[in-house]
Amino acid sequence: MNTTTQTEIHLANRPSGMPSDNDFDFVKRAIPTPNDKEVLVRTLYLSVDPYMRGRMQDAKSYIAPFKLHEAIVGGTIAQVVQSNSSQFKKGDIVIGNLKWAEYSVASEKEIRVIDPSAAPITTHLGILGLTGLTAYFGLLDIGKPQKGEVVVVSGAAGAVGSAVGQIAKIKGAYVVGIAGSDEKIRYLKEELGFDEAVNYKSAHLQEELAKACPNGVDVYFDNVGGEVTDAVFTLLNRNARIPLCGAISSYNAEGKDLGPRLQSAMIKTSSLMKGFTLGDYSSQFKEGSAQLIQWFQEGKLKYEETIVEGFEKTPEAFLGLFKGNNLGKQLVKVADPEN
Amino acid sequence: MNTTTQTEIHLANRPSGMPSDNDFDFVKRAIPTPNDKEVLVRTLYLSVDPYMRGRMQDAKSYIAPFKLHEAIVGGTIAQVVQSNSSQFKKGDIVIGNLKWAEYSVASEKEIRVIDPSAAPITTHLGILGLTGLTAYFGLLDIGKPQKGEVVVVSGAAGAVGSAVGQIAKIKGAYVVGIAGSDEKIRYLKEELGFDEAVNYKSAHLQEELAKACPNGVDVYFDNVGGEVTDAVFTLLNRNARIPLCGAISSYNAEGKDLGPRLQSAMIKTSSLMKGFTLGDYSSQFKEGSAQLIQWFQEGKLKYEETIVEGFEKTPEAFLGLFKGNNLGKQLVKVADPEN
Repeated sequence: MNTTTQTEIHLANRPSGMPSDNDFDFVKRAIPTPNDKEVLVRTLYLSVDPYMRGRMQDAKSYIAPFKLHEAIVGGTIAQVVQSNSSQFKKGDIVIGNLKWAEYSVASEKEIRVIDPSAAPITTHLGILGLTGLTAYFGLLDIGKPQKGEVVVVSGAAGAVGSAVGQIAKIKGAYVVGIAGSDEKIRYLKEELGFDEAVNYKSAHLQEELAKACPNGVDVYFDNVGGEVTDAVFTLLNRNARIPLCGAISSYNAEGKDLGPRLQSAMIKTSSLMKGFTLGDYSSQFKEGSAQLIQWFQEGKLKYEETIVEGFEKTPEAFLGLFKGNNLGKQLVKVADPEN
Repeated sequence: MNTTTQTEIHLANRPSGMPSDNDFDFVKRAIPTPNDKEVLVRTLYLSVDPYMRGRMQDAKSYIAPFKLHEAIVGGTIAQVVQSNSSQFKKGDIVIGNLKWAEYSVASEKEIRVIDPSAAPITTHLGILGLTGLTAYFGLLDIGKPQKGEVVVVSGAAGAVGSAVGQIAKIKGAYVVGIAGSDEKIRYLKEELGFDEAVNYKSAHLQEELAKACPNGVDVYFDNVGGEVTDAVFTLLNRNARIPLCGAISSYNAEGKDLGPRLQSAMIKTSSLMKGFTLGDYSSQFKEGSAQLIQWFQEGKLKYEETIVEGFEKTPEAFLGLFKGNNLGKQLVKVADPEN
């Protein structure tokens, strides 16, 4: 290293409504020094994810809020620059939940080595990582799609949604995706093999969805909430299952976020809705990962990445999630690995 | 019988919003004549239930709508007047889903005999009947209350709610009821042994509920929906379970019935919400009934009835359900049994 300083991105404010550039501070800091059993890593890729919006609020949730005026933390692929640990050596590619920073120090327990020869390293932040596992457990444990059933997924062209649809296809379901652009619709149907896909920006969402699901909806994997979900609710079959993974349409809502009450429809159909977070399944990660890797190697799981280049573009990439800018997993490339 | 005519109550209109007397027609008809394998019965008690509001709409649901200008049908205790069936004899007390009529004809499959010496006959329309079974399966199959957990029930002084709270107490839960009058609050705490009870008409519902549930809410058995439910949702613990039995606050809503979107709270807590109707459990009725009868005989299940006298008061009794007039099961007494 020729420099002694590096940049971190701190949470400057707790945003109300849609976050903006002003909610992030770029802060120069000395490159930190690892202690015993720690390593210094250089960030290669950062994952930006919708759930991080929740951590920007100071609210009780399944995960602690980010601290104000400290670095934001998220899924990161990095390379070991200096190691004071026998478990890691210089040059290792590692994954962990680390700071939005060009360089950071990690303890042995915070990271694990990934094998760059097995799959592209970025897949560990996406289809083979927490994203793929989120799709896997939410769909299979709560949604329980049966052969021939109709599975609808919202946010279908996003990282989780595109995995959900493909896993549902593997299980023999009829899969309908909901996404926000003609390019995404084309991608879902032509690249990922979805049976149908509907653009939620259509003026006739309700009608188009009904046309795409002439046999109703048995499983609705919900990433978005809001009016898209209201439309799907009119099509629920008896004993429908609704894994609630995200409600991105609500994350930036200011004041009261109102919608039609859903309980009557759920009683009429005996439907089940369950919120979940990946942590609910931590004891089963190994099993889930093994299955995802097998499907990936068999060519049954495709993935797409939207990668913006440059650490300074991290806030922009994060904010783009709420505009639907991304196709598949949204990543930020910070640096190339060194040999 | 000295008369040849009797009265039925027909659905005159499909009500929009709160039904009124005008939606019911009293129609004189000849007392019908039973065919082979049929019996003529005289109605003794009618059950009026919130779910019947749904059947007044011409909407797809788990149960067919009532037909316009035909008799409304509901839970009925009756006495056999004339039998053309070897399974029933004159004087038998029977239960079935029969017309709102002073007399009606029933086929063998529509009714079954009940034993008036085992328990008061009206309990078969309440705590030992479909009402008790609804509480039993919704609470135990979906709510799954564990010893020491906090169970909140709305509509707690109603027929289903009061059974739910008592079954939750049998299972060792801490039980909090929500009801709409000081008399009901007193009844729940002093007669039924609820740990706490909160009046939803309080100006400080949210605060009072939080005070009644200092350890949050593990199971919320929901009979009412609406703002009561919104308040409970702020108190959900991780892995909360919410059996959706009814949404009486929505049944008469005109236009859009809006409320806060609940998905984000469910994701944060990994909560489960499931609609159900008693028909979902028809294969287990025998087991459920046996358990209810055992608890009843052990004195662990108390019940209350609000009985209006006179067939002509049936619409009034039905409409009273939506004003919270009833304590426990609302019944209409049409006639006394004859020896």
